[in-house]
Amino acid sequence: MPLIPTRDTVLCMSLAGRPGSFGVRFHNHLYEQLGLDYYYKAFSTHDLPAAVAGIRALGIRGCGVSMPFKEACIALVDEMDASAAAIQSINTVVNDNGHLKAYNTDYLAIRQLIDQHSLAPDTSFALLGSGGMAKAVASAFRDAGFSHGTLIARNPDSGPALARHLGYEWRAHLGDARPRMLVNVTPIGMSGGPEADQLAFAEAAVQAADIVFDVVALPALTPLVVLGQSLGKQVITGLEVIALQALEQFVLYTGVRPTAEQVRLATEYARS
Amino acid sequence: MPLIPTRDTVLCMSLAGRPGSFGVRFHNHLYEQLGLDYYYKAFSTHDLPAAVAGIRALGIRGCGVSMPFKEACIALVDEMDASAAAIQSINTVVNDNGHLKAYNTDYLAIRQLIDQHSLAPDTSFALLGSGGMAKAVASAFRDAGFSHGTLIARNPDSGPALARHLGYEWRAHLGDARPRMLVNVTPIGMSGGPEADQLAFAEAAVQAADIVFDVVALPALTPLVVLGQSLGKQVITGLEVIALQALEQFVLYTGVRPTAEQVRLATEYARS
Repeated sequence: MPLIPTRDTVLCMSLAGRPGSFGVRFHNHLYEQLGLDYYYKAFSTHDLPAAVAGIRALGIRGCGVSMPFKEACIALVDEMDASAAAIQSINTVVNDNGHLKAYNTDYLAIRQLIDQHSLAPDTSFALLGSGGMAKAVASAFRDAGFSHGTLIARNPDSGPALARHLGYEWRAHLGDARPRMLVNVTPIGMSGGPEADQLAFAEAAVQAADIVFDVVALPALTPLVVLGQSLGKQVITGLEVIALQALEQFVLYTGVRPTAEQVRLATEYARS
Repeated sequence: MPLIPTRDTVLCMSLAGRPGSFGVRFHNHLYEQLGLDYYYKAFSTHDLPAAVAGIRALGIRGCGVSMPFKEACIALVDEMDASAAAIQSINTVVNDNGHLKAYNTDYLAIRQLIDQHSLAPDTSFALLGSGGMAKAVASAFRDAGFSHGTLIARNPDSGPALARHLGYEWRAHLGDARPRMLVNVTPIGMSGGPEADQLAFAEAAVQAADIVFDVVALPALTPLVVLGQSLGKQVITGLEVIALQALEQFVLYTGVRPTAEQVRLATEYARS
């Protein structure tokens, strides 16, 4: 349970077209565990410029930015961190006395996960998707030195454009390619979505791969993750991504880095 | 302690040059007692128009407005309730899907207290002060039919102007006048202020009066209140005003009217 509110409680927030529960629960849980006089609130808006002006005018400390605001927000901040500038997409705004600096902690989280899981840059991979999150993930792999990549995207505009921008190959379908790592950055397998029970990659491709990386966080056990685990592959889940990007937001907002155990408990709480 | 925050938690807030603790504690305590998924946060701002635009854009349900924003806010709302229009001063904004309606619950509270304490309109009174709150209090007496009033104010501009506007007499000092009711609407007797240990009215005037009404809420037991009680006068304290105006805000924001006992407990909590 959170602390008793005071007049000095620091507010952090999120802006999303459809606010989720993860951030609210993750951040508030850590505030309470660490005894920080902070409060986290999820918002939506029909007027992004006024919402951002309000963040500045009210001294709201930080704001998570989700779809569909990640790119429109760029014109409204004062400074872009390299993580956001590199992919021209914002998921975090930090307010220092009215100066708004934007970050992309999705990008930062993927970079960290590549290190934590010791993924080697010469690993061939196929990345499915071409939306904003796909841009963050593919850019992180590119910037980590992965040169043997293929972007798989049905969209004939955004797919080739993103692949060209990053120096990767583009294909509309994986076909009979058998890369060593499969990365899903589409909503395929996401609970509540129209493809919740679908595999993001064909079973034959999963069998042939060594590593499965699914960015879908809800549920953590997507059909792709379940299959990868059952086949004994190295598996990285979207839960790791969402927790790590939320953790980096938390550190930016509070200046405090929780322990791994505190993060584990907050993640467990946020999922429940 | 407040409820566990969810993504649907409704935010209410206050805007003040120097935020106090009463509102934060009063509202959050009632939210928890009544099981309402609300959260109340105090803010200040250097940019009132952007702050109000943020309230609208973020769907913040309600906002208490204190000095120095009570008049500047008028140009920023969509509709003025009679309580705010009558005195051209706002202390409450209610947001209905982006439509901002302004109220003055100080005025409403004084009107209610006049009724609750059965103050008779033919009672002669002197009211000390000529600021925004004095305007609310004097207007409430005027609108309740009190015709024998004198405004006491050292300020030679605002004092006579307010008296003229309301049809009351103005004096710079009470002198040897001995009205039946004495009303203090200055910071005299307020803790932390430079006149914390001062009596708002001379002892002789208190002795001659029947009723003492002090709008100062912190402390509830101002020197004027203490003297009035010791002399057996009918006494109305600022604590009644602040609690009642906060209660009316609470009802406007939530649509729920707590019981008298719940209000008593919240007021006690907010003072502690």
